[in-house]
Amino acid sequence: MLEPDSHLSLSTPSSKLNIVILAAGKGTRMHSSKPKVLHALAGKPILQHVLDTARKLQPSKIIVIYGFGGEAVPQALPADDITWVKQTEQLGTGHAMQQALPYLESDARTLILLGDVPLLALESCERLLCEQAALALLTVNKPNPAGYGRIVRDQAAVKAIVEHKDATEAQRAIQEVNTGIMAAENAWLEKWLSRLDNRNAQQEYYLTDIVAMAVADGQPVAATQGDDEWQVAGVNSKQDLATLERVYQQRYAASLLEQGVTLADPARIDIRGSLVVGRDVEIDVGCVFEGEVTLADNVRIGPYCVIRNATIGAGTTLSAYTHIDDASLAEDCRIGPYARLRPGTTLADHAHVGNFVELKNAQVDSGSKINHLSYVGDATVGKQVNIGAGTITCNYDGVNKSRTIIEDRAFIGSDTQLIAPVTVKAGATIAAGSTITQDAPADTLTMSRVRQFTIENWKRPEKVKK
Amino acid sequence: MLEPDSHLSLSTPSSKLNIVILAAGKGTRMHSSKPKVLHALAGKPILQHVLDTARKLQPSKIIVIYGFGGEAVPQALPADDITWVKQTEQLGTGHAMQQALPYLESDARTLILLGDVPLLALESCERLLCEQAALALLTVNKPNPAGYGRIVRDQAAVKAIVEHKDATEAQRAIQEVNTGIMAAENAWLEKWLSRLDNRNAQQEYYLTDIVAMAVADGQPVAATQGDDEWQVAGVNSKQDLATLERVYQQRYAASLLEQGVTLADPARIDIRGSLVVGRDVEIDVGCVFEGEVTLADNVRIGPYCVIRNATIGAGTTLSAYTHIDDASLAEDCRIGPYARLRPGTTLADHAHVGNFVELKNAQVDSGSKINHLSYVGDATVGKQVNIGAGTITCNYDGVNKSRTIIEDRAFIGSDTQLIAPVTVKAGATIAAGSTITQDAPADTLTMSRVRQFTIENWKRPEKVKK
Amino acid sequence: MLEPDSHLSLSTPSSKLNIVILAAGKGTRMHSSKPKVLHALAGKPILQHVLDTARKLQPSKIIVIYGFGGEAVPQALPADDITWVKQTEQLGTGHAMQQALPYLESDARTLILLGDVPLLALESCERLLCEQAALALLTVNKPNPAGYGRIVRDQAAVKAIVEHKDATEAQRAIQEVNTGIMAAENAWLEKWLSRLDNRNAQQEYYLTDIVAMAVADGQPVAATQGDDEWQVAGVNSKQDLATLERVYQQRYAASLLEQGVTLADPARIDIRGSLVVGRDVEIDVGCVFEGEVTLADNVRIGPYCVIRNATIGAGTTLSAYTHIDDASLAEDCRIGPYARLRPGTTLADHAHVGNFVELKNAQVDSGSKINHLSYVGDATVGKQVNIGAGTITCNYDGVNKSRTIIEDRAFIGSDTQLIAPVTVKAGATIAAGSTITQDAPADTLTMSRVRQFTIENWKRPEKVKK
Repeated sequence: MLEPDSHLSLSTPSSKLNIVILAAGKGTRMHSSKPKVLHALAGKPILQHVLDTARKLQPSKIIVIYGFGGEAVPQALPADDITWVKQTEQLGTGHAMQQALPYLESDARTLILLGDVPLLALESCERLLCEQAALALLTVNKPNPAGYGRIVRDQAAVKAIVEHKDATEAQRAIQEVNTGIMAAENAWLEKWLSRLDNRNAQQEYYLTDIVAMAVADGQPVAATQGDDEWQVAGVNSKQDLATLERVYQQRYAASLLEQGVTLADPARIDIRGSLVVGRDVEIDVGCVFEGEVTLADNVRIGPYCVIRNATIGAGTTLSAYTHIDDASLAEDCRIGPYARLRPGTTLADHAHVGNFVELKNAQVDSGSKINHLSYVGDATVGKQVNIGAGTITCNYDGVNKSRTIIEDRAFIGSDTQLIAPVTVKAGATIAAGSTITQDAPADTLTMSRVRQFTIENWKRPEKVKK
Repeated sequence: MLEPDSHLSLSTPSSKLNIVILAAGKGTRMHSSKPKVLHALAGKPILQHVLDTARKLQPSKIIVIYGFGGEAVPQALPADDITWVKQTEQLGTGHAMQQALPYLESDARTLILLGDVPLLALESCERLLCEQAALALLTVNKPNPAGYGRIVRDQAAVKAIVEHKDATEAQRAIQEVNTGIMAAENAWLEKWLSRLDNRNAQQEYYLTDIVAMAVADGQPVAATQGDDEWQVAGVNSKQDLATLERVYQQRYAASLLEQGVTLADPARIDIRGSLVVGRDVEIDVGCVFEGEVTLADNVRIGPYCVIRNATIGAGTTLSAYTHIDDASLAEDCRIGPYARLRPGTTLADHAHVGNFVELKNAQVDSGSKINHLSYVGDATVGKQVNIGAGTITCNYDGVNKSRTIIEDRAFIGSDTQLIAPVTVKAGATIAAGSTITQDAPADTLTMSRVRQFTIENWKRPEKVKK
Repeated sequence: MLEPDSHLSLSTPSSKLNIVILAAGKGTRMHSSKPKVLHALAGKPILQHVLDTARKLQPSKIIVIYGFGGEAVPQALPADDITWVKQTEQLGTGHAMQQALPYLESDARTLILLGDVPLLALESCERLLCEQAALALLTVNKPNPAGYGRIVRDQAAVKAIVEHKDATEAQRAIQEVNTGIMAAENAWLEKWLSRLDNRNAQQEYYLTDIVAMAVADGQPVAATQGDDEWQVAGVNSKQDLATLERVYQQRYAASLLEQGVTLADPARIDIRGSLVVGRDVEIDVGCVFEGEVTLADNVRIGPYCVIRNATIGAGTTLSAYTHIDDASLAEDCRIGPYARLRPGTTLADHAHVGNFVELKNAQVDSGSKINHLSYVGDATVGKQVNIGAGTITCNYDGVNKSRTIIEDRAFIGSDTQLIAPVTVKAGATIAAGSTITQDAPADTLTMSRVRQFTIENWKRPEKVKK
């Protein structure tokens, strides 16, 4: 029995579901040493998109047929719920499905997906699976169908798939074409797959030949029309990949607009992962989001920010060119421009991080400010701390990393080096230009300065002739 | 009498003009806690766009009907020339206009504008106001008019507005639709508005019902066709807002091209305010301009610059990622990349500001250079000064801000801290790595350096096992 | 004899080739003080594009007719193989060609190109030159031909070019229009050009009048249809320039995709020069390439990088906002974000350059790291060197530039100034915050630090009332 799924209508077929994903192709036109299905769309391998959709259908088995690139594909996408089946020779889609046969469950039906078709929607799969037929094809209408196998129907039932080169003039006018995606009862599928032959020009085993077998067997062949060409578009070249990337991004941008996000330009935002947004979020042009990013209410992101794996609290503002990787920002922070927050950084409410500042594995408490030209790494910064321009936490001695502690209300003068491990106690002031090697006591002034002096009668250097 | 206006043709009606702007709607689909008309298009609230156009028509009164969001709308756009009228219940456009009635001048006519239609051109208003009729509608042809009220004409005169749901098949084929924007003689308007009722499915008072009244009263109803769908497009969602933002930006870019600006990509420039340009200006991809920006002849702006409220003199070049906010640059300056000029900064001719440099409230005289990794704030920098890499003006002691004065021809060695208030006199040289707490005399070398020493037999740290 | 050229088919006319480029126009609508043909498309003057195409045809002569802007045009594009001919008065295209007459070779044919039509493909020229006729025109089909001279044919042969204003209704329906680009046998061209007159409304000499002369002389006039409107589009305004810039960039992006490059968005990449790519190269959104750039296998370029004249080795990664100008990077380097590599910089394998770092004329050997907030200029950095945050090579004393040598395995503590000329010997360690004026011995610790001290009973400054 197919597991219950709220997406499915009541007419769901009453059988177990197997899913086979055909992912053995090389993709010669990708001009890449990487298997085609591992190329990323929106930051995620193409095949991963297909797997994510497949899993939502709650199948009892997922079988992936791989081939080109050898073990690279299973290694890139390790998962307990996948049966990996290697197609050692690439002799056509029918041959690929034959490799899956031993793993199919006899009391199930199988949905055949294509590993290089990343944007097929869950709803399209569900509609296909609603068909009550031994064999059901997903088709699509193409305004320009040249080159595709045409769906020849007799009323609702499919009579044949006719390849472009074999089609009559009348058949070539048919705009409904085969997508390669289909569902079949395993009992029938086993029978038909075993009968395939390769007596054709390419000497390949064609999966589509099972349509004629079904018709010959008197089995109804259903066809569900897909909604969008892009849903069934495969990736065979970098041009295809770029085209589908844009489709994906435009659709993601549209969904953000629907949620109420203000986007300065929906054509200039890239989301490679998930972007969870609160109310009244504003995103300026050219921002890139990767991994899991959450923006709370009233967050404002300036132009050309790059943000990866971050949680950003309500009311926080990022100015232009802010770069965040694996960091967590609380509420009402002011960041950037040109600020870089590296992994492990956390900012409490009302923290300010300004231009040309790098934070790495730094925990900054509320109300503290690091506004100019500083490197603060492996550091704990208390509340209401003010860190002057050009401050550097010297956290690395060449082999070991050590931590710097700056307690509440400390004031670090400009151009200070804090040689970790070291603590600046609460309320301490460090004079500008100091090298702090030992803990600085609380509520006092610590420095390492020499008196200023002037050399009279000094002459400026003269230009050396070369 | 309408004030003379060079935009208006001779057939302008000879009556005073009132303008009513309907701006009470919530805009539920905006998914925002901010009233719809306060959302920004090109950096300015939508309603402000409508007000700016309204004012150019020199009306004797501007009445804005507000409602959702309460006082937020009048507070956001304070102005002496606006009569704010609150619509406490939202019972339809006719009801909204009824609120305006007490404020209309009996010897005037009224132009009714929509507070959520930001891009209506002045010329379209003027054409509508040229109509010699008790009631004149602004209409537009929509290739796909479904859902809109159709304009049913008998020759030139309008006979009725028929709502989509009430339209016959023949009427549904009409592409000319009502925009909601109209002009009416106040004498008639008072009469018609007082007769409106809400006996309809929505139980709302519809302003469009006055068309039928005018026809019944034997008054001609004129209709002026608008030029562009975007001119009369309302903002009901963030998608609408993004679409109109792009229309606005494309049109602004086109006007810059017409003025002779070289734009690397007209689809990748954003202007949120006014951009005044001289001759032979070049702007690379991805730049954002906010507020009032003036670029003189031969200014070149590199890619991804963000420039707000700035005047940039002839021949000045900004390299990539330059960020300017409220600053004034004279001629032949060289700025960036990665330079940030903050409020109050002025640069004289031939000043150079390089990478990772932040200037704030700094006045830099001609020929001076701050090329690398510096913070210069609250400072006066003379002519021909050279400020080395890593220089920091320590302008803040935690509570007070003080100024740094660097006189002509001074040479500030790298990594110097200038503890303000402090003056470096003309021609002084500061040695690298100095902390300058007192004034440095002119034409000499000042420093605060200790002698370098070496620790023999020293061993590097070893890796600590954890 | 035309030189053999692999691009040409066997039916190439058997005569020498002259090329005349008409480049005298002012381009009033450009609103520029620069001659129209010197405006840059993809970083190169428009006329240079035409010259580059012309040279590939291996003509025996290239004659450029210039005029507006005086010597600015020949000075901007100096070349030994060009005969520059000045048209002192601008009396039409026929008059321009008359200036070229004295320089044409009598035993050659002439291809007439337009200096403001930058994107004409070599193949289109070759096809035109394959025509066996005394006069051959390049034409193009325009869906909206209004305003253009129509090609009136009698079978294959051209009978006339009819200007729009003189055209009959039937002729106005013709979509094939004249482009101004043509090829003619010089013997005939001399004869026809000498017969041109200016008895027309504009009082100009029209080159197109030679078509009627050829027909009158019984000479066949051939016409080759160009493939694309953009190929024959001229630049008369900044809008035209922007449009053709986009065409150029889209085509370049498409060619990169065909070569297997992964482009995050083909609409957001700008190439102004040549970009040579290896296998499995990835380029994120918004990158700008200028001059000659080579990216080896597996190079990954992050968003918003600006790269000019650079060679980047296999496996090297550039993060966001990296700015490179005239530098060479070896394999597996990690650069950025916010890194700037200036002219003369070379990085060996596995070098790392991090955020807010500027390198200028620095040679960095393998495995060395300059990861934070540093300026390293005029420096030689050995292998496995670690340069701490805030390090500055003080390479300039106000008049002279000197070099810093940092030998293998040196460790430079943070916030160090290296006063060049100076050498840090192999394996030396420099303590943080040091000013190094003399060579630092190998394998020891060198510093210029003072002991840290604390001032007890110190009070923080109080707010001064103003």
